[in-house]
Amino acid sequence: MEITVLKNIMGANEEKASELRALLKSKKVLMINMIGSPGAGKTTILENTIAGLKKKNYGVAVIEGDVATDRDARRLQRFEIPITLINTDGACHLEALSIEASLEGFDLDKLDIVFIENVGNIVCPAEFDVGEHAKVAVVSVTEGDDKPLKYPLLFREAEAIILNKTDLEKYTNFNRQNFMDDIKNLNGAIPLFEMASMNEPDLGAWFDWLDAKLQEVRTA
Amino acid sequence: MEITVLKNIMGANEEKASELRALLKSKKVLMINMIGSPGAGKTTILENTIAGLKKKNYGVAVIEGDVATDRDARRLQRFEIPITLINTDGACHLEALSIEASLEGFDLDKLDIVFIENVGNIVCPAEFDVGEHAKVAVVSVTEGDDKPLKYPLLFREAEAIILNKTDLEKYTNFNRQNFMDDIKNLNGAIPLFEMASMNEPDLGAWFDWLDAKLQEVRTA
Repeated sequence: MEITVLKNIMGANEEKASELRALLKSKKVLMINMIGSPGAGKTTILENTIAGLKKKNYGVAVIEGDVATDRDARRLQRFEIPITLINTDGACHLEALSIEASLEGFDLDKLDIVFIENVGNIVCPAEFDVGEHAKVAVVSVTEGDDKPLKYPLLFREAEAIILNKTDLEKYTNFNRQNFMDDIKNLNGAIPLFEMASMNEPDLGAWFDWLDAKLQEVRTA
Repeated sequence: MEITVLKNIMGANEEKASELRALLKSKKVLMINMIGSPGAGKTTILENTIAGLKKKNYGVAVIEGDVATDRDARRLQRFEIPITLINTDGACHLEALSIEASLEGFDLDKLDIVFIENVGNIVCPAEFDVGEHAKVAVVSVTEGDDKPLKYPLLFREAEAIILNKTDLEKYTNFNRQNFMDDIKNLNGAIPLFEMASMNEPDLGAWFDWLDAKLQEVRTA
């Protein structure tokens, strides 16, 4: 019986996710689902990304998923962009249904990109389609080079990887060759953007990738 | 209907967990459930801990929970201790039922301590009693000082905290005062053990704590 229930939940989630993706497409809005471990640097990356995109006059909004507190959402308030906070109250991932309520609160006609910061977790969030156009995996060098092999689903589902905290790499035993080999085996030529998110990183390649994704959504 | 099913699962899990705890108590074996983010350093801490406890002639076994791969289990093989690997095949936490099967494979009469290395995740593993005598939260300074507030359940459920990678603290914006204040608010005088697990840390206080826990299990 549990399995049937679970299948129903997953089925309903996927249906809702497809609906949201269609809505976003009709409004020419790109939605990116950022997934990473606790402390991988998702919020700091968003701070840098939003600052850069605002300079380029993009309309940006954020959906913050957190188990508890509004800390990350508050960190982004200074950008004066639309932000919705979803406190999952213990749940370890976001689902399409909760994203729908957040999207309804945004004026989509004024937006280009919606970023979802998923709950800090690299297991369950990778399993749920929340209506995004692309999942982005965020992993920091301080977590170790074995994360792709140990959590393969995320690195298969992702369409881009941000390798963060590269400024700390020299103090760790992170083996870049192993990391790159494992990623290649899991997901071929997936784009990888290196960042040292505390140090005003060069976001040029990341912005180019976002632009290309945005073009995909804007064209048929 | 989903809620009823979930309640049944949780109820069955708790019953099984109590059963396991009673079994371990009758065998005078301590079981410790280590919970932390991916890359917090759980396996390295176990390597150091097992090396130290073997020198002191403790009987140690490990139950390794992993979403995929046998990497962490293989890292511990050189110690020639009993190790069971549980591949959760996508699930983000361990449950008492899977622990039972692992314990059945051990000769409990020859053991003093069983360590569980839970799946790398600080959300769901904190919710599940797997029959352990104590949960230990493992968090590294590179994850940031806001983890206790953002993932409060783990830091409330834990009976000890290992603060790892303190050798990297000077390269981060980790605010120790905030971290300590938040922990104190969540869980009073919970013991905290600092480690720089890559650098042969001093494990004296950690071993004393384990010894005290072991004494609790050995006495009525």
